[in-house]
Amino acid sequence: MTAMDSLAVLGAGPGAAILRRSRRADVSAIVALLAADQLGVTRDGVRDESDLAAYEEAFRAIDADPAHLLLVAESGGEVIGTMQLSFLPGLARRGALRAQIEAVRVASGARGSGLGAAMMTWAIEEARRRGCALVQLTSDKSRTDAHRFYERLGFVASHEGMKLAL
Amino acid sequence: MTAMDSLAVLGAGPGAAILRRSRRADVSAIVALLAADQLGVTRDGVRDESDLAAYEEAFRAIDADPAHLLLVAESGGEVIGTMQLSFLPGLARRGALRAQIEAVRVASGARGSGLGAAMMTWAIEEARRRGCALVQLTSDKSRTDAHRFYERLGFVASHEGMKLAL
Repeated sequence: MTAMDSLAVLGAGPGAAILRRSRRADVSAIVALLAADQLGVTRDGVRDESDLAAYEEAFRAIDADPAHLLLVAESGGEVIGTMQLSFLPGLARRGALRAQIEAVRVASGARGSGLGAAMMTWAIEEARRRGCALVQLTSDKSRTDAHRFYERLGFVASHEGMKLAL
Repeated sequence: MTAMDSLAVLGAGPGAAILRRSRRADVSAIVALLAADQLGVTRDGVRDESDLAAYEEAFRAIDADPAHLLLVAESGGEVIGTMQLSFLPGLARRGALRAQIEAVRVASGARGSGLGAAMMTWAIEEARRRGCALVQLTSDKSRTDAHRFYERLGFVASHEGMKLAL
């Protein structure tokens, strides 16, 4: 890691983390965070080489496109948080650019430290810097703690988030 | 219009529409559909040249990126429907590609004809062709008719759709 990799320092003192773009070597750690989640446990994890190949292919697609930022928070050499930001053009709302946040995860040992809020605050500021008119995300209806967390940050649960598995 | 522009023929008989990628010349018609909407009326429309320039800039950004498809349904030379599809890579769900649908609108005179369902069915099939694992959209909580429409197509309102205006 070089200082130039860092997008932001989140928090202070020994618990401080740096926020940076993910690298290919982070894929396993990010997948571990996804798989540690109550809903992700059945959806994510590396069972065999084909799973790892699928994650690495997705990583390449994200990393190659400047419209996407896959980020990690790192502290003491460990990945303790992740989120993906995507910047999406659209005609609605007078041609508004939207920032979309997906797959926000904080390691269990780092929860309650303010890391998640610091990551989200950075994401909202980055959306503003890029001229977005809106930040959007969806959150499973069972994650009631997460909804309160997002509402404290200013999000409004104004929409139904509808999914169709193929 | 040439036959090669057409992605699909939706419906049959004199009411049939073709589905095609939008062109710059369609921007005004698409904006008119957005502005005719109950929620879009305050958000969309061309009040002056700077509005038009913002829409045209958004059109260029969408049109230049193969991850986005801004589509129109055309019948008798008129744009009677529109939707945007975006194909988004992500690590979650074993590196699943997602299709996201935004800004689905059907002209008032064409509602009840099955055009909206035909457009959505094409979008779901296109997502499958591109190897997506999931199709997702958000819909304002006040649009209860739209929720039933999406549920008939197989969507599940499993998530809160949260927005933060900047």
